[in-house]
Amino acid sequence: MAAPTTFSGEVWAELRLADARDVPHIYSLIHQMAEFELLTDLFAATHELLTSTLFPTPQPAPFTSFTALILDLSPSPVPASADTVSSLRLDLAASPLADPEAAAFPSPRGGGHVTAGFVICFPNYSTFLAKPGLYVEDIFVRAPWRRHGLGRMMLSAVAGRAAEIGMGRVEWCVLDWNQNAIDFYEQMGAEVFTKWRICRLTGPALDKYKGTGSGSQEVKDAGKAE
Amino acid sequence: MAAPTTFSGEVWAELRLADARDVPHIYSLIHQMAEFELLTDLFAATHELLTSTLFPTPQPAPFTSFTALILDLSPSPVPASADTVSSLRLDLAASPLADPEAAAFPSPRGGGHVTAGFVICFPNYSTFLAKPGLYVEDIFVRAPWRRHGLGRMMLSAVAGRAAEIGMGRVEWCVLDWNQNAIDFYEQMGAEVFTKWRICRLTGPALDKYKGTGSGSQEVKDAGKAE
Repeated sequence: MAAPTTFSGEVWAELRLADARDVPHIYSLIHQMAEFELLTDLFAATHELLTSTLFPTPQPAPFTSFTALILDLSPSPVPASADTVSSLRLDLAASPLADPEAAAFPSPRGGGHVTAGFVICFPNYSTFLAKPGLYVEDIFVRAPWRRHGLGRMMLSAVAGRAAEIGMGRVEWCVLDWNQNAIDFYEQMGAEVFTKWRICRLTGPALDKYKGTGSGSQEVKDAGKAE
Repeated sequence: MAAPTTFSGEVWAELRLADARDVPHIYSLIHQMAEFELLTDLFAATHELLTSTLFPTPQPAPFTSFTALILDLSPSPVPASADTVSSLRLDLAASPLADPEAAAFPSPRGGGHVTAGFVICFPNYSTFLAKPGLYVEDIFVRAPWRRHGLGRMMLSAVAGRAAEIGMGRVEWCVLDWNQNAIDFYEQMGAEVFTKWRICRLTGPALDKYKGTGSGSQEVKDAGKAE
């Protein structure tokens, strides 16, 4: 069953665990996200890297390591499977939704489902709590599907799963000029921290430290090191 | 051999992988850090939680999951072991160092070593790079041992190890008013991002999402969800 390009009436959204068959769409969605954030110069993902890093063999249990979730939309109800994390019924009767890219995003699960978004998350750790938390690296929904409660459904679902498995907190980042997003997150109960800044070593600035963590007995003069 | 409380002449620092024997000192150091940051109200760690979350059985390979490193100081050279990540010789000839707490921090490795700090780090993930990175949750050195190049040694060592195992970046957080730390990190080659804000769901605000990520087929009206 081919995916439609216009959705109307009832549409079923499923957030489910991804597998390696989803890599081509994950790649395309990450690229769309990079375009949206004007950061395509930082984009270096490949199908091969995504496959090896997100879907290693053996695959760790969901939410215990890097975890990819896929948002699929379907014109008919989606039977829950072991991979289902959350689902939502959209009522588009009043306003049909055009998804010109639908033909480019057929879900590998078939059934006329269309892939419309993804989540990447992984455990982090709080020393004060002495507990793991969940860090949400990305939540992305393709443009035609925004403002239908899908982002809320996705974030609620991963927060719910984190709470259920005993994680102490869920964290993510937002750009300080994105007031709509900040309002939305605060409405969901999140605290937005204004004082903390992220520091990053990458590229040549990181490579220059190779050899300083080699496990060999490296002896330096303290005066030179500071 | 008992640990001295005053160190002079040459002193050897070793950054090494921690094990469950280090939990009592890790606990005390986290508490000192909470006091330093005026955040003791958030402190909820226990020996039992630290042991079960940082030192599970089987223990994952270092830097592939939550990883604790310990900084030990010794008045005599420390032979490198499989657990050594980095080491540094300090020359205190010009200015002996008093460590009044030394007797409370004997290293469980013995040999008159004194535990003076710790690092907690774990992998994170960059979708743009499609690669793991390393997130440094904490780097802490007890007060008497600061300003001797030990923080630089510790951060360099974990950055070096991350680069060597193919990670794409190393990240951590700093408070925006801590200009000394910001200057130090920038001097080490890090970029400090001014636009990103951390969002956090925790406590009751997180618990209310239990049941939304249950894997059951949950059907909501889209209008109500947004």
